[in-house]
Formats: sequence, structure tokens, C-alpha cells
Amino acid sequence: MPDIFDRWVIPVSLPPPRLTDNRADADRLAGALKSVLHTDDITFAWPLLKVLPRRLRAAASGKVRCVVMKDGRGFRVVGVKDIADPSPAAGIAVDLGTTRVVLRLIDLETGAALSETALDNPQISVGPDILARIHFAANDSGRRGLHERIISGLNTAVADLCQKADIVADDIFLMTVAGNTSMTHLFLEIVPDWIIREPYIPAANRFSLISAAELGIAVNPCACVFVFPNVGSYFGGDLIAGILYSGLHRRDEIAMLVDVGTNAEVLLGNRDWLVACAGAAGPALEGGMSKIGMTARPGVIDEIRIDPQTRAFQIHTIGDQPPVGICGSGMIDLAAQLFLTGMIDLRGKFVKDACGGRRIEKDGIHQITVVPADQSATGSELAISQTDIDSLVRSKAAMYAILETITAYVGVTFKDIVTFFVAGTFGSFIKPRSAIAIGMIPDLPETTYQPLGNSSLAGASLALTSRAAFDEIDAIRDRITYLELNVNPEFMGRFSAAKFLPHTDPARFPSVVRKN
Amino acid sequence: MPDIFDRWVIPVSLPPPRLTDNRADADRLAGALKSVLHTDDITFAWPLLKVLPRRLRAAASGKVRCVVMKDGRGFRVVGVKDIADPSPAAGIAVDLGTTRVVLRLIDLETGAALSETALDNPQISVGPDILARIHFAANDSGRRGLHERIISGLNTAVADLCQKADIVADDIFLMTVAGNTSMTHLFLEIVPDWIIREPYIPAANRFSLISAAELGIAVNPCACVFVFPNVGSYFGGDLIAGILYSGLHRRDEIAMLVDVGTNAEVLLGNRDWLVACAGAAGPALEGGMSKIGMTARPGVIDEIRIDPQTRAFQIHTIGDQPPVGICGSGMIDLAAQLFLTGMIDLRGKFVKDACGGRRIEKDGIHQITVVPADQSATGSELAISQTDIDSLVRSKAAMYAILETITAYVGVTFKDIVTFFVAGTFGSFIKPRSAIAIGMIPDLPETTYQPLGNSSLAGASLALTSRAAFDEIDAIRDRITYLELNVNPEFMGRFSAAKFLPHTDPARFPSVVRKN
Repeated sequence: MPDIFDRWVIPVSLPPPRLTDNRADADRLAGALKSVLHTDDITFAWPLLKVLPRRLRAAASGKVRCVVMKDGRGFRVVGVKDIADPSPAAGIAVDLGTTRVVLRLIDLETGAALSETALDNPQISVGPDILARIHFAANDSGRRGLHERIISGLNTAVADLCQKADIVADDIFLMTVAGNTSMTHLFLEIVPDWIIREPYIPAANRFSLISAAELGIAVNPCACVFVFPNVGSYFGGDLIAGILYSGLHRRDEIAMLVDVGTNAEVLLGNRDWLVACAGAAGPALEGGMSKIGMTARPGVIDEIRIDPQTRAFQIHTIGDQPPVGICGSGMIDLAAQLFLTGMIDLRGKFVKDACGGRRIEKDGIHQITVVPADQSATGSELAISQTDIDSLVRSKAAMYAILETITAYVGVTFKDIVTFFVAGTFGSFIKPRSAIAIGMIPDLPETTYQPLGNSSLAGASLALTSRAAFDEIDAIRDRITYLELNVNPEFMGRFSAAKFLPHTDPARFPSVVRKN
Repeated sequence: MPDIFDRWVIPVSLPPPRLTDNRADADRLAGALKSVLHTDDITFAWPLLKVLPRRLRAAASGKVRCVVMKDGRGFRVVGVKDIADPSPAAGIAVDLGTTRVVLRLIDLETGAALSETALDNPQISVGPDILARIHFAANDSGRRGLHERIISGLNTAVADLCQKADIVADDIFLMTVAGNTSMTHLFLEIVPDWIIREPYIPAANRFSLISAAELGIAVNPCACVFVFPNVGSYFGGDLIAGILYSGLHRRDEIAMLVDVGTNAEVLLGNRDWLVACAGAAGPALEGGMSKIGMTARPGVIDEIRIDPQTRAFQIHTIGDQPPVGICGSGMIDLAAQLFLTGMIDLRGKFVKDACGGRRIEKDGIHQITVVPADQSATGSELAISQTDIDSLVRSKAAMYAILETITAYVGVTFKDIVTFFVAGTFGSFIKPRSAIAIGMIPDLPETTYQPLGNSSLAGASLALTSRAAFDEIDAIRDRITYLELNVNPEFMGRFSAAKFLPHTDPARFPSVVRKN
């Protein structure tokens, strides 16, 4: 569709004021916008209203570009620029991750990405995980401190975006923020206490537009911030953004979207129905449990092959750097290879004979050497223990049980799933064959699995470049039926059955064939 | 109707959160409010959302009182109090006059007035009239200065209201502000430049709810401010508030509402139609032209009788104090008596013989002594000049021509007008018989004329105590047809014909009989 009907920047031609048409400036402008927006419900950011008469009269041609944003059922005008003004009208999409925050500066008229930047979530100084931060936010000063940390971090990032794209912050009129429910609460300084306590109640699932100035974000004083809505405490705006980006809510075929982290969030559906659930998968899949586990960065092992005959390890690291540790997808690769080569058994336990010299005992716990000390970047050997493998097996079992439960709940089978989207960094690195080999995900054709990349950022960006896409956000949220695993009677049985490699019922994984 | 269905404070009983009802706190509260407000469109002031989870859980009974306000087509929740909390939920109605600002503190639950205070509009230091202030606002610092003056004045008044009523400012959640279009613009720091320049364009006629905190008003941080809409540059929110209070928009019979000042604003209508116009009446009716003219206060002459035989002046002052000057209604009384006793002629000129010794010449201009020096509070004589009378005649002629033009435009006659509301201080003091005697208002039975008092404040108060009344505001505004006198071809002819006392056509004023 033509940009004017889909972008947030709308060019309008204003009739000049006359005695016979002495409507207020705001009414004249709203009247012109109405022909594009098809509503009378058009309001103005107060700081814009203050200077509107001058802004309109400064446009010699009578033509201006208006930056608008959906506000409830109507629109809020947040910027007016002379059509002859060459400076852009920009917006910022934010993926507000617990660990990492990524921002993309977007030209609202062309839809082009102007620059991108990322930072560690500055709240990490309080605690790496959500739980620690929510406890820190238990009192007003803690909550305020966390809020100020993220706002200050965002402001630094905004300055960086502007510098990279050579624009001024005053040209930024919109911001869309997609984060999980806890990050969203902490961003908005909202009491998060009951998110983590049964029955897990967020303060709010939807957020009105908030003025950037009120939030303390250093962009145009009229700018507003849209925060993606949550479904509940454990299914947040980052997922809604991901669904929006994936487009699965518009497809005829059934698709699944999985975001893997400490929590696994899953959505199953198509254009007719959407069912979501979330469950604790444990930190193993993020590489967070093992002593050598770490998130993806140069030097991290992301791929391992074990020769079925010689049992020699062939290791690949990100950026081909000397190995420093192993990430979640590397762990899955490793476990899959250990299993396929017979080095671990059906229960994930090290097989003494098969492991040979790689298996050593340390402090009463068995471990196997992945990288000897003389080949690692750290100078120490990189090893994973039986405990690490046990933990990974529990995580993959939880993951599989979640997928099985949601599928059964809806009454479909894995075979009905045409596309299986895997979100996040994890999704970009994971090798479906390996995840299938350990029985973490169903044994579907490899082409079924599609990495989405940073779908939270992509969804937040889409909301800035397409009004039609933006309009789907609330509809997606409202259509989602949330399946509460905590009260699901069958989940535990499925979890136990999935604690074998690949499963208690190997017939479910016909493609998994051990080579030894 | 029961208060719960008409007040802005709504008691609700909240279901406790459960695993099987794990809606967000805001959703649970909105759900409970929906049964009273009949809409899903319920949002929360951000500062309230921040602490909502604690506020709800602190209410031991699960019962809370919510303060809401209409926001576009939906509602905004701006306060939540424990039902057991004995402190009131209050609001402030503001009559934002060019000269005087009056505030009333209202208990939003009972509708009772808790206290009242008034102050001179602090912008007077810049200029007594609108024109001077708009010129002062031509640059950003001037505009900001005027805004800050009124905000600071309001904050002093808010503290005074609280002290008088023994409540804290944190218990104030709503504010309604009714002012003319220029005062409204200056209050909101909006560029007013084009209000006073043909074709007389305000920046805006409607204003979204504004957060009191953003405005700098020291009440509850979640509070919001509603500003009455204008019809145009010369028909402002104070009039809309006055109409609301008068109820003329709900009557079957035709009524007129007149607010007399430097500008005369007139509304004519009934439940089916409303027509408004405004025109310059000149400062004479406010007592602003004459050397001894002043607004009503102790010592000001508000009533004069002249003995038709002896031509002795019998003078009444406000508070029976020694005379210091004369107000608008006193001037009208004086002119009427001078005319009825033959001391001025049909054109308003002093009649030498009839004036006798009271008529003296000073600096080439004739004047008559109203109060001799030895009887005045100032020690100087109080006199009015031929120029003063000429000015009054022009003003009354403008007033009558406006009334005639709007009536003719609609196609009704003065006799069709069942009630003639006179707003403002002027309306409280004016004697209809005198105004009729000089032909300023039509010759209708005296009981037709009803003073409304401070109808702007009363309307602003009504908006705080009745949701149903509030809902009429926009409907009133939208129904008004504004008649532009500047482009009316017949107005000037009517004005000329009305420059006689009582009129060129005395048959229009059968009740006016000169006694001499």
C-alpha cells in the first residue's frame, strides 16, 4: 500500500485560515489528517500544541508532514515539520532484553534503518536475572534506581544512534519498546513485586502512550513511547513483537514460535487461533549453568563434531578464535554428539568405556574434557561435568514437555506444524539436527525450523514502519489464549518421559540414529 | 440518579487474584469499573500505575474508591483510595478570568463545596487586558512568563483552599478550568498570536486532559486538568461553562445568555439549536473608560436615583462606603436616570438647562458632577464627562445591535425569549429596568432577566460533580453555530439605529417613559 496510508508520517496540505473558515489551527490540521486517518479522534501532544500556530505559518507552501501515533482508538499528533524541511522524522525501536538492549533508529518516512546500537542492560549491575532485580525493586528507591539506570542507558544509546546516523535527537518522535513483562515494569518504574509470586500478577498488561519527556528520554519533547503489551507475567511484549514480525498470526497453516531462555515461551497458532504458554526450562539452554557456559561471543564454542570412530572432537568457535567457553547451542551440539557417538547413554550419563581418557573425576564428579588446557584461550581445560549434562537433559525435557503439552491442549500433532520459528540469538545459532538428536524439539524436517533472529527488535521496528502492522499488536494480544502450565495435570508426566535421550518413546524420533 | 452513576469517584469491589484469574491488576480494576462506566476504554495515569499493585493490596477489604475522568471517549483512572480511608477525594473548579480568578474546592463524592478562594489574575502585572498580554506573549519567554505567573498564582490559591478546608493537596485529583479563549491559551502556554488578528484563529478549541504535574500544579501527582473547550477566538470555555450551568441547552423554550464585558458574548437557543456571537461592546459597560470607572468593590457607586422634580442625586455604594468611583451597572443606572429625567437628550448629550449647576466645562469637555469633592472618599469630585456618556451610548448600541442581529439571524423576535440570563458580576449588579431605559437590552418583562452569578465557576463546578453534566460539554460546543459579526452586512445599520436613547424607533421600548 502507498506509504501515506501505512507510515506514521503523513503529508498534508492545509487550507489557509479565512473569516469564513476560522477553525482553530488544530482543527484545521486534524481535518486534513482525517481524510487519511478516517477518524475525528485526533489529539495533539501538549508541547506541540504550544507552538502549532507558528509551525503551520512557517510552512510557506502550506504543506507540512505530521508525525502521528495511535493513541487508544484515535491518534496523537507528535510532530509537525515543514514539507520543505530536509531533516528526517525518525523513530527508535528498542528490544529491551534482560541481558542485552538493542536499539534501531528508523526513518519513519522511508522505513529505512539509519543506525543501530546495543548495550548491556545497565540493570545487570543489580543482578543478572529478573528475580534479583525484582527483589531489588521491592522498595521505592530500588525501583527508581533500576528505572533510572535503564533510562540513562537508553539516553546514551540514543545519542550514539544519532551520532552514527548524523541526525539530531529532536528529529526523533516515536519510540517502540518490546521487552518481557518484568523488564517492561522496571522500565516504567511500576511495582513488579507480584509478577514472581503466585498467582503471578503483573500490574498491567497494556500501557498507554507515555510522553518521552515524562519518561526522561532525551528525544523530541513531543515524542511518545509505545510499550508493547504483555499477555501475562511470563509472556511479554517481546514475544508479541516476535509474533508480529513472524506473521504467523496471518497464516492459514499452523506454526509454532519458540523463544528459548531460562524461560521457554511458546506460541502455537494460525490466523484463526493463538495459544501461548511459558515454562521454566532452566538456564542450561542459555549456557548459564555450566562452569564454562556463556552467551555467544567471539571464542565461544558454537559447534562440535565428534568422529564416531575415533571420537576425536572437532570444535568450531565464533569468529574462529581460541576457545573460551561454550554457548547454549554449543552445549546442545555437544550433548547430541556425545549421545550419537555413544559417549552418553539414554539417561545422559557418561559411558565410561566410550569416553576413555576424556572422562576424569574431579571433586567426586565425573567430567569430560572438551578442550585441553593447552588449546584453550584461558589456559585451563574446558570441561563439562555430569551435572552439566544432567541439567541440560532436564532443560530439554522441560522444553519438549512444554511443546507436547501445548500441542495436545490444542488437539494438533507436531506433524501439523508447518513452520517452527526459533526466536532470539539462540534461534540463530541452534542446529535443529542436534536439538532433535537429544529430543529437545520434535523430529520434523529440518526445513520446518526457521530462525527469526532478534524478532523482538524486528517487531518493534515493524511497528514504526507500518500502521497496519501496529494495528495488529493489540489484536494479537487479545487473541492469545494463555495456557497455565502450573495448573496442568499432565505436564509432569510428559516431563519425566522426556528425560531420556531422545525420549522414553524412541519411535517419536525416527531420524535419530546412534552411530555407535 | 445515584451518585455512583454520576460522580467521578466510583467504589469498586475487587475479586482477589487467582491462578485461574491472573489478570493484571490494572485489568482487574478496569474490569470492575467497566460495570459502572460501560466501556473497555479505561486507562491509568502512569504515576498511579507505578504503585497500583501496592495500593490494591493495601485495601484489606478488597474495596477501593477510584477517581476517574473522561479522556476522549474513554476514562482515565487518576486515583485509587482504600474504601476505609477517611480522607476525601477532591477536585478544584477554576473560573480563569482575565481580571479575577476564582477557585472552588469540591468533595468529588458528596459534591459539597469545601472552600473557595479568589485572586487577581497575576498576569495583570503585564497588562490589564487581553491585548496587552497577547502582545507580551509574542516571544517564548514572555509566553512562558505569563504561563508561570498563572500557575504560580493557582498554586498559592490551591494551598489556601487546602488550608481552609483542612485537607492535603495530595487529595486533589481533578481540576476543571473555564476561561476565555485567550486566558486558556496563556494558561497552557500556547501561542495566542493569531487570536487577535484577522481572521482570528485560536491554536486549538479543544484540549486533551493534561497531567497536573506536567502543568506544574501542586496537587496529587496523578491528577489531571480538564480545560473547557472554546467555540472560537471570541467565544470561550467560560461561556460553555455558563451555558452548561444555565441549562438553556436542555430547555424547550428559547433563552438567551449574555456575558457583558469589553466583549459582549451572546448565546441564543434551546434544546434544538444554539447560536452564538460575540462583538466588541467597548469598555464602558465595565466602567473601564471613565476616569472614575472601576470594577465593583466597596465604595463603588452601583445605584443612582435622580429625583425627576428636584434632580437631586440619591447615591448608593457597595457596602455603603463613601463613594470612590462608579462601576458598569452604576454607569447604566446613571445614564438611565439622566435620560429619564431629561438631563441628557435622545443622542445622550447633556441638556444644558436640565443639568443646571451640575454641568461644568473642564478642558473644553462638558461634565456633570456626580459626587461633590466634600462627599467623596477621594477628596476630589466624582464627575462623568460627555465623552463617558458618548462611549456608554456606543457600547449599549453595540450590545443591542448584537442582540438584534443574532435574533434576526435565527428568525425569532425578542418576545420569543422566555429567559434572558445575564452572566458574571455584571449580571448580578445590573438593574434590567435601567438597561432597558437606555435601550441596551430589549424591553421585556423584568422577570425575564435572570442573573447567573459566576456561571463560569458554577459550570466548572458542575463538571466536577456530575459525569452526566460533563458529557454535555462537548455536545454543547459542537451544537453551537457561531455567527461572525465581522462579516454581517446588517450589523452596522443596526448599530447606528441603536445609538439613540432608547432607540431610533422608540416603539420598541414602550415601557420607557421619560418623566421630564
